[in-house]
This record gives sequence, C-alpha cells and structure tokens, in this order.
Amino acid sequence: SVNPDLASERQTASFSVEKLTALLDGGAEQTRIRRAVVEAIESDPVFSRENQYFQTQNERYEAAVRKAVHLQKKMHEMGWTENGPEYKYIYRALSGDVAFLLHRVFMRSISVLGSDKQIAKWIPPATQHQLIGSYAQTELGHGTYLQGLETTAVFDIATQEFILNTPKISAMKWWPGDMGRSATHTVVFAQLYIHGKCYGIHPFIVQIRSLQDHSLCPGVTAGDIGPKMNFEHIDNGYLMLKNVRIPRDNMLSKFCEVRPDGTYVRQGSQKINYFTMTTVRISLISDEVLTPLMKACTIAIRYSAVRRQSKLKPGEQEAKILDYQTQQEKLLPQLAAAYAFHFINDYLQKLFDRGYREIQRKNFDMLPELHALSSGFKAVITHHCTAAVEICLRACGGHGYSLLSGLPSLYTKILASCIYEGENTILLLQTARFLIKCFMAASTGQPVPPSVTYLAAVKPEKCPAKKKSDFLNPDIYTEAYQHVAVRLISSTAAKLQDLVQSGVKKYDAWNQCTVQLVQAAKAHCHYITVKNFAETVEKLETKAGIQRIMKHLCDLFALHGIFSNTGAFLHDGYVSAAQMDMVTASYLDLLAVIRKDAVPLVDAFDFTDKSLNSALGSYDGQVYQRLYEWAQKSPTNKMSPAYERYLKPLLHNTLSKL
Amino acid sequence: SVNPDLASERQTASFSVEKLTALLDGGAEQTRIRRAVVEAIESDPVFSRENQYFQTQNERYEAAVRKAVHLQKKMHEMGWTENGPEYKYIYRALSGDVAFLLHRVFMRSISVLGSDKQIAKWIPPATQHQLIGSYAQTELGHGTYLQGLETTAVFDIATQEFILNTPKISAMKWWPGDMGRSATHTVVFAQLYIHGKCYGIHPFIVQIRSLQDHSLCPGVTAGDIGPKMNFEHIDNGYLMLKNVRIPRDNMLSKFCEVRPDGTYVRQGSQKINYFTMTTVRISLISDEVLTPLMKACTIAIRYSAVRRQSKLKPGEQEAKILDYQTQQEKLLPQLAAAYAFHFINDYLQKLFDRGYREIQRKNFDMLPELHALSSGFKAVITHHCTAAVEICLRACGGHGYSLLSGLPSLYTKILASCIYEGENTILLLQTARFLIKCFMAASTGQPVPPSVTYLAAVKPEKCPAKKKSDFLNPDIYTEAYQHVAVRLISSTAAKLQDLVQSGVKKYDAWNQCTVQLVQAAKAHCHYITVKNFAETVEKLETKAGIQRIMKHLCDLFALHGIFSNTGAFLHDGYVSAAQMDMVTASYLDLLAVIRKDAVPLVDAFDFTDKSLNSALGSYDGQVYQRLYEWAQKSPTNKMSPAYERYLKPLLHNTLSKL
Repeated sequence: SVNPDLASERQTASFSVEKLTALLDGGAEQTRIRRAVVEAIESDPVFSRENQYFQTQNERYEAAVRKAVHLQKKMHEMGWTENGPEYKYIYRALSGDVAFLLHRVFMRSISVLGSDKQIAKWIPPATQHQLIGSYAQTELGHGTYLQGLETTAVFDIATQEFILNTPKISAMKWWPGDMGRSATHTVVFAQLYIHGKCYGIHPFIVQIRSLQDHSLCPGVTAGDIGPKMNFEHIDNGYLMLKNVRIPRDNMLSKFCEVRPDGTYVRQGSQKINYFTMTTVRISLISDEVLTPLMKACTIAIRYSAVRRQSKLKPGEQEAKILDYQTQQEKLLPQLAAAYAFHFINDYLQKLFDRGYREIQRKNFDMLPELHALSSGFKAVITHHCTAAVEICLRACGGHGYSLLSGLPSLYTKILASCIYEGENTILLLQTARFLIKCFMAASTGQPVPPSVTYLAAVKPEKCPAKKKSDFLNPDIYTEAYQHVAVRLISSTAAKLQDLVQSGVKKYDAWNQCTVQLVQAAKAHCHYITVKNFAETVEKLETKAGIQRIMKHLCDLFALHGIFSNTGAFLHDGYVSAAQMDMVTASYLDLLAVIRKDAVPLVDAFDFTDKSLNSALGSYDGQVYQRLYEWAQKSPTNKMSPAYERYLKPLLHNTLSKL
Repeated sequence: SVNPDLASERQTASFSVEKLTALLDGGAEQTRIRRAVVEAIESDPVFSRENQYFQTQNERYEAAVRKAVHLQKKMHEMGWTENGPEYKYIYRALSGDVAFLLHRVFMRSISVLGSDKQIAKWIPPATQHQLIGSYAQTELGHGTYLQGLETTAVFDIATQEFILNTPKISAMKWWPGDMGRSATHTVVFAQLYIHGKCYGIHPFIVQIRSLQDHSLCPGVTAGDIGPKMNFEHIDNGYLMLKNVRIPRDNMLSKFCEVRPDGTYVRQGSQKINYFTMTTVRISLISDEVLTPLMKACTIAIRYSAVRRQSKLKPGEQEAKILDYQTQQEKLLPQLAAAYAFHFINDYLQKLFDRGYREIQRKNFDMLPELHALSSGFKAVITHHCTAAVEICLRACGGHGYSLLSGLPSLYTKILASCIYEGENTILLLQTARFLIKCFMAASTGQPVPPSVTYLAAVKPEKCPAKKKSDFLNPDIYTEAYQHVAVRLISSTAAKLQDLVQSGVKKYDAWNQCTVQLVQAAKAHCHYITVKNFAETVEKLETKAGIQRIMKHLCDLFALHGIFSNTGAFLHDGYVSAAQMDMVTASYLDLLAVIRKDAVPLVDAFDFTDKSLNSALGSYDGQVYQRLYEWAQKSPTNKMSPAYERYLKPLLHNTLSKL
C-alpha cells in the first residue's frame, strides 16, 4: 500500500508521467526496451544488490566477478548483443555493480591502437574471456600529465624484445581497475627507448598473471590498492615491473612501429584516436553522473513528501518537509538541473555523433571545439551533479546519513567522476584556452566555431527586464547568461594581455589568470546549458502538459543560476539591483509552482525500487517500515565478542581492579 | 628522512612555528600538557588506529569498546581525572574513536534533570560502570521537533509505575549511540500522560538489558540501526517499548514531579537547563569540526608540496601542485578559515563561560543572544568546515579518494555535524528570528544585546576604498561585511512586514522569507567572524612574525568571503565594480604571499602522524612509499575465493558452454 502522503502527490500531477518518461528515453519504444532489460536483470537473483550496504570490500569484489561471469550467460540467453538496442541499458540496470569494465577498455584500446594483425591475435581470445585485460596508464606519481609517466620500455635488438621496468616507486602503476586481483593481461603505457633515445609514451600488451594458475608472472609485482571511498567492488590495482620482457609484436602499432633493426616509424593520423579519448568524457555523463543525480532526487523528494516535521500553521498536523521553502530551495533546483543536464547531454551526444561522421570523412575541423566542449561539460556537469547529490543527502537529515538511504553510496561514487577521466580544474583550463583563442580570433574578425560565435556578436548593455515576469522570458535570461560569459572571457583575455605587455612571462601570466579562466569556462558552459534547455522546451509538443512543466523547470534552472551567482550578473550593471530583486521574487515563486509536481517529476525518471536500493525512496513511501526491516538484517545485529571480552567484565566489575 | 620538497618549505618559514602552536593551545604550558596526553595515548598499542581503514563495522565497534574499557585503566594509571587539565585532550588524542560517549550524556542528563535523590542513586554506579547508559530522544519519525515525539509514558496510580510504549513504528527510538549493542539503561524521552491528560515530553530512566547476561528486558526490542556513512565504531541503536513498567521514581524530577496521587508539579527554573543544551552546540565545534578541518588542511597542503604535476615553466622540472594558482585558491582559503574559526571558537567559549556565571547568579538576560549565537555559529561553522574538508579531499585528486589518505573518513564524519545537535537550516532560522526581533527593537530605539548593536548604528553608504591595498585594511572589509549583514536583515524584515500588511498570515509570510532569512543569519555570523579575527590579530604580540602572518590570513579569509559572494556586496552599490576588481586583485595577490608559509602554517597545528593517520599527510612527506606499504596490508590482498569459483572456470572455458 502506498503511503497516503505520497499517493496524494501523484493525484494532482499537471502532466502525463508516462509521456515524460518516453520523452526522456527518446521514444516509447526505447522505454519498452529499457524496461524489458531492467526486468530481466532485476528478476535474476544473481544480480541482486539487496545486501550491498552490509558487504565488505572483499564480498563486493566477489559479487562483482560473479555478476560479470553470469552476465555473459545472461546476454546469450536473452539474445542481447554489443550492437543491439538493449546493450546500453544493461550497465545502468546493474547500477554499474559488475567487474571487468576495464576488460572492455583493454579491448577497445587494442582495437583503436593496434595493427590489424594485433587485433586479429588478441580480440578473439579477449572476447571469449580466455584472458582478462586491464589498462595501466596512471602511476603513483602521475595522473593527468601523461608525458610525465616514468615506466620504461627499452628495445633490445638482440632478442627483439621490449624490457619493461618501473624505475622508481612513483612510476608504479596505480588505480587500474580489474588489475588488483583479476586481470591476466594489461596495456601498459611506458616511455619507449631505442638505442638510449626516448620516443615518448607508447602502449604495450603485458601479461601479468599465469593463465594456468593465476600466479604473478616473473618480474611482476601486483596487488590491490586497498580501501577507497566507493568502488569497493572494483579491484583497482598496483603493478611494478622488473625486467619484464615482451615480444616486439606487443607494442600496439597502428600509429607507431619499431622495426626489427630499431628504426622507429610513425604512420597514419592519430586524430581519430584523440577524438575517441574525447568522447569517453561525454559517454560517462549519462550513466555515471545523470543517473545518480536522478536517483538522489527521486529518493530525497519522495522522502520529503512523507516526512513530516514541525508545524507550518498553528493547530494543524505537522507539515511535510517538502512544504518548507528552504527544503524546496534545496531540492527543486537539483531536479531542474537533472533535466537541464539530460537535455544538454542529448545535445552533446548528437554533436559528437556528427563529429564522428565528419572525422571519418577526414574532416578534422570540429576537433578543437569538440575537445573544448567535452572537457568543459565533463567538468561542469560532474561538479554540479556531485554537489547536487550531496544536497539531496543532507536534505534528508539523519536518515540520509544511513547507508540504507542509498544516498551516501550515490555521493561517494559520483564524487569520483570529478577526478577520473581528467581532473576537473585541468579540464576547465583546457576549455578556457580554447575560449581565449576564439575570443582573440573573433575580435579580429576571424571565423570561430559555432558554439562560440556569440563572442563576436554585439549585445545590449543592459538587461531590458521591467517586471518580475520578464525573467520568465527565456530570451531575457539567456542573454544575461551570454553577457556574463562574454564579460568573463573578455576581461580575462584583457588581463592576460596586460600582464604579458607589462613584461610577465606568458606561462606566469597564464598561471596568474587561472582562477578567473576557470570562472570563464564555467560561465560558457552554463550559458550553453541554459540556451539549450530553452531551445529544447520551445520545440516540445504542447500536449499532455509536458511543455508547460519543462518550461517551469527551465526557468527555475536559469533563475537559480542567477540567484546563486548574483555578483556575476550585477558586476557591470547588466542586471540592476532592482532587477535582481525581481529575479529573486520570480525564483522563489517558481519553487512553490514546481513543488506541486515534484513527485510526478521524479516518478518520470522511472526507477524501480530495486534500482534505487533505498529505504527512503521506494515508490510506496513506506520509509520507516523499510528502515527497520533492513536494519535488522545488518551484521551488526549478530552476537559480538565484545560482550564476553569487555562489557561483561566491566559491568561485573571483574576487570583487574582499577 | 624528510622529502626534500617538504623540507625546503620549512626552511623559509616567516614565523616561529612553535610560538604559533602555543598561541593556538592558549600557552606553552597547555602545549606541554597536550603533547604529554598525546604521547601517552599514542604509545599505547590498545589505542592504535593503524588498521582502521581495513576494518568492518563490527571490528570498529569491538575496538571502540575495548578502547573505552582500557581508557578507564589508563586514566587511573596516568592520574588523569575528569576535572584535570589533561581531560580535554584525551578525546582528541583518541580521534573520537572510542565507545560509551553516550554514557557521559546519560550521566549528565541525570545530573542536570534529576533530583538530588536520583543523582545519589544513579551517578555512583554509572561512574563505576556497573551500568552503561544511553540517551534515547530521537525517533524514526522525529528529530529536531521534540514536541512531536510519540513515545508514551502513562502513569498507573495503582502500581505507582509509568507504562512506556512505542505506539507506532515512527515512534521507535532511532540513532541513540551506545544503544544498539552496549547500553543496559537509557534515558527515554516520552509524552507523559496522567489520567488521560498529556503533560508533554519528560525524561525517564529505563533499563533495557539485563545486568546479568545482557539479554533484552521484557517488552524491550532493541538493536543496531546498521551501516552509516561513518561512525562505524558507534552502535547507534533502535528501541521499541511494549508495556514496559518503571517505578515512579524513574522520571527525572528536578523540574517536574508526579506525586503518588497523580498530581503533576512543576518546580524550579529550567532556564539553566536550556542553557546547557545550548552550550553543547558550542562545545562540539572544537573537537568535531575544527580538528578535522585542521587535519584535512595539513594532509592536503603537505601533499600539494610534494606532488608534482605538469610544467609551469617550459624546460623546468614538473611543478609542485601548490604552485598553481588554482590549487592555492582551493586550499589556502580553507587554511585561513581554520584559523578564523579557531579564534571565533575562543571568543564563543569565553562568552559562554561568562554566560554561565551570569546564569548561576540568576541573571538570564544573556540567554536569547547566547542561544542565537550558538545556533548560528554551529550551523555556519559546521557547514563551512564540511565544505572545506571536501575541497581538501578533491584537491588531492585520485589519492585523496583512497581511504588511506585519511580524507574520506574526515569528510564522512564531519558531514554528520551539519545534521546532529540541530539541523543547520533550522538552527539558522532560529538565529534569524532573533535577528529580526533585534532589528525591529533597534529601529524603534530599544536596547539590544551587544552582538547586534551594529544593527542600530549609522553607517556610510559606500565603501571608501580607493586602491587595492585599501582592501587589506580590516576596517574597510569589516565594515563591508557589517553593511551586508544589515542590508540582508533589514530587507528581509521589510519583506516580512510587507507580506503581513498585505494580508498574508504571519506563519505563511515567515515561510515565504525563509530562504532570505537563512542568508541574513549567515551574513551576521560571517561578519562577527571577520570582526573577531581582525580584533584578535590587532591584539597579538608583534614578535616572531606571528602577527604578520595572522594578518595575512585574516585578510585572506575576509577577501575570500567577498570574492565568493560578490553579489551580496555589489547589490546596492556599497562596493562598486571597480572596487570589486581591487578585491579580486588583492585576494589573488594574497594567495601567492600565504603560499610561502603554507606548510609551516599547517605544521603549527602540531598533529602527529598517528593522529593524522594519513598516507598523504605525514610529517616526512614520503607519500608514495607509505601508500604502497599500507595498501599491501589491505584484506583485499588476501586470497579470494573468486578465483576458484568464477575466474578459473571462465578463463579455462569450463563454464557450462554459453
């Protein structure tokens, strides 16, 4: 039975939840396929996550391996293939709780970086899991800056082998997934040396464990890096190599080859390869970032509709916490952000698909823009969504702090997305470099890529809004965002130029501007997100109330961004103080409007109870019953030796006399 | 041997680290006592935290009980007493990793709420640990709003007993520490009923487990609430009561008594009791909030001085990440905040000591102000420090994400401080209520408490700064903070009045202003923190470079606050755009200045390696060696059954054919 406090929220939905779900999925047919995958996974007990919050790191790892192995069977049984329409829903249905994800990266890196001969040799046994691969790039002392990697691969002409070494402790490979305990092979990135000359970083296939008994190969030291904030199910590993010899054929040689005589040959264009790396940042947004935020919103908003606390009006029953303005102000902007980022993700996916087609046609013009967009949006979306999940967690008070709420796990996992695949600050500075370059080009009349043409356009000096409802006009707020982005980019470009002209070295000048460059890059991405949301709403069909509620969310997202960054808009007087008060008033009004549809808006994300795995967020809202039932299963409710050993002697005063 | 990259940071300290440590401790003698306590605790293997990051919740609980029992011996052995000068350092030296903390709350509540007879009966056996107490207030369905608690205590005249019940699941006690597995007794807060009439919430001593065999008493259901984001060592528990009868004497009756005939009698003033609750919020700041932030700063700043990444100047060695402006902008404001909050904590402690003396003299005039300050500062400091620890964690990249860095545990623990002892938003609204009241009083010329007299003073309309160095003048920035606080309080008061005058009900008007009321309360606390920091610096002795570096930190704290909230200062033109650019320039300049002393500034916090328990933060900076050594001890580097069960059949292709 559904908690009446939750049921009543659904009776008054102003739109069709099912239609909105279909919109998010990209059509009703996609919804059908997704649900079928979820049903198949969730009805299979091997994939259960029921006891997840009670398990140790070892238990989580073992379960992930079991699931990965079982998944092979399941896919065969269900007729799912890597190219089929179901494939993209599998990982999400498993909530990522599965091993061998790096095995896929291992295979992809061979497919992308390997010669045809290498692909023919390695891909078939890898596909059949006759070996398990990993991907060993990051070292203890080196992450984002790949040129700094210290592992060496020296070519030995005499034996036609590469000799791999970890010259010092900071060169130890550290973090690669599946490597701590599972992998038999890995792609190692190392500095290539031929005749004492360094040719830079290259990828090598190295076997690390026996295929017979899984013991470490000679010269190999490897293991698990130990406990982390999350990802307990993954055996992130370390790897040291001491005079490990591999055949010359094991250097992945699509782009660079070492001939038997030691000649080093470059071949082909690596541009498509760079593009592949770039797309990884976009591809992670959906499953690793948006899904967790949507789950967190679902949990926190459903809970806020059943949790009652204090009285809003004297004499009445205690109020739902969702009725408090402060609670709305915590949660509803996060809900709006989930939609905003869903739509910008759609936009980026389409843009990258187009980019891929262009690049296949050997047209590389879009590459700089795509690189800048993928860097900036990876950083902005992971940062924003991580903060949003934390807000959802805190907004649930004490119960949010229990692992049983599901929120701590969502938070500790999404947090990692700010670090992996490029640390966010470094990525934003890459976007900023592109923006400064484009700004300089635009200001001298040169052509610039489509996403930055706005840098060249002439804009009004002042926001034209006259009353608070004007701030519900997308043109008004989109232009305000655009104005701020232009101002931050142009003023930082000017500061850079001033510094250099005053004699500061270019690299010093750059460093002295980085705090402001980061702000400029964020403003650029924020502007594009708002613009895209507004344009998306414009194109929606007006039926079933969808466009109306999406318009409200778009307004909320935009106005929340202004309300939270008032200084950026007030700075040069583009928005006046009186206008800012209108923004605040419009923003606070919107909270009360969207609050009415808050539960239907999270229902539309269409998560099953099993996928949420939350005592607070289930569809029926029976929060307290579930917390109690789940807590009873905790291993902490088993007998503890602490009683006989410590408590009994203490209470019976039989400890050696104090 | 100390990592040379860290050693060089210490050679150029501009001040005496030892002198600063003594200043933080409140004198060299205090430093001596603290170090002696730390030495005694850390040299005792029972108190070791060495394997903490590898332990399960059960293992953590058992260790905490073992330590709590051992601590009794240790205190006796060392001659430490509850009133001695060493006492306050013990908990900190244990990093809070010890059981029976609620036993102290149990005893304190009896001391404060019990009659002399009850104190005489319960305190001696509790002191000797012949029983273990807990404190059962929070329920599944009720936290901060105490009037809403649902547990009932019905007086039965016939037997002269109270009959305690948990009428429904939301009334179950939930969260009390030490209750899940350890406690034999607890203080239960329940609605008192006599002859069918409810007299509100009262405290009752209830035995929940047998003193003989620790089995649950008849009618009692209790256990552990399961896994949490941290506090694995504490057995937070649940408790259901079914017709549990306790003698009439078990109602704590200093302030209210039920006579044998069922007459209900109030006696004495509860004001000193309210004051005790208020002081708890202040007392937690030091150990639960400031110490974790200081540890996080120590770890992140030392790591940033030894971690090298990318090149700042072409041709040079990779740069220390602490040399990047963006890294400085992440970490140094958190360091400044640690000092700012240390000094405001000193201020609050002194104020509350004075308040205590006044209240003992039956002068309750200070109570409203102290309540407002304790609520506001608890919320502002816990919020700020939690965010700061998270920034430190992220600033260490991947290694910050490893539990071995110590940062995840610091973060997941400090996060709870935003929720316990009053949820932060609710506390800020209590401060806001006080501020609005005082503002109304001040504007009609009535007297107001000292901390809010500024609301009545006449201030300049515009910031008088002319050049960027003017923003290093504490009068300039303190007045700017004051101006913003007054503006936010007065404008929200005006909005409230307008709403009420336009016919909106008072409680609705309040709810519609809460987002802005929260901002106003924060601005008030921020202003007082800046003012207090500036005044503290003013009074420091000028020797040994201490005042100079503290002045820089004070400036940084103040300017960072403006830089991060530009809109609040720009809104009414108090600070102009040109002045804001000066703030930014001064702020960024300061980063480079303080960076030079960053490592000595964290060294002054004087944490031992054992107390930091971090592979990244040790005094010698041997980061990579320690990560590797610690990882090898992880249980994930033991044999796993996953190989024989799943990996081997997969690799050997002996799984039932796909």
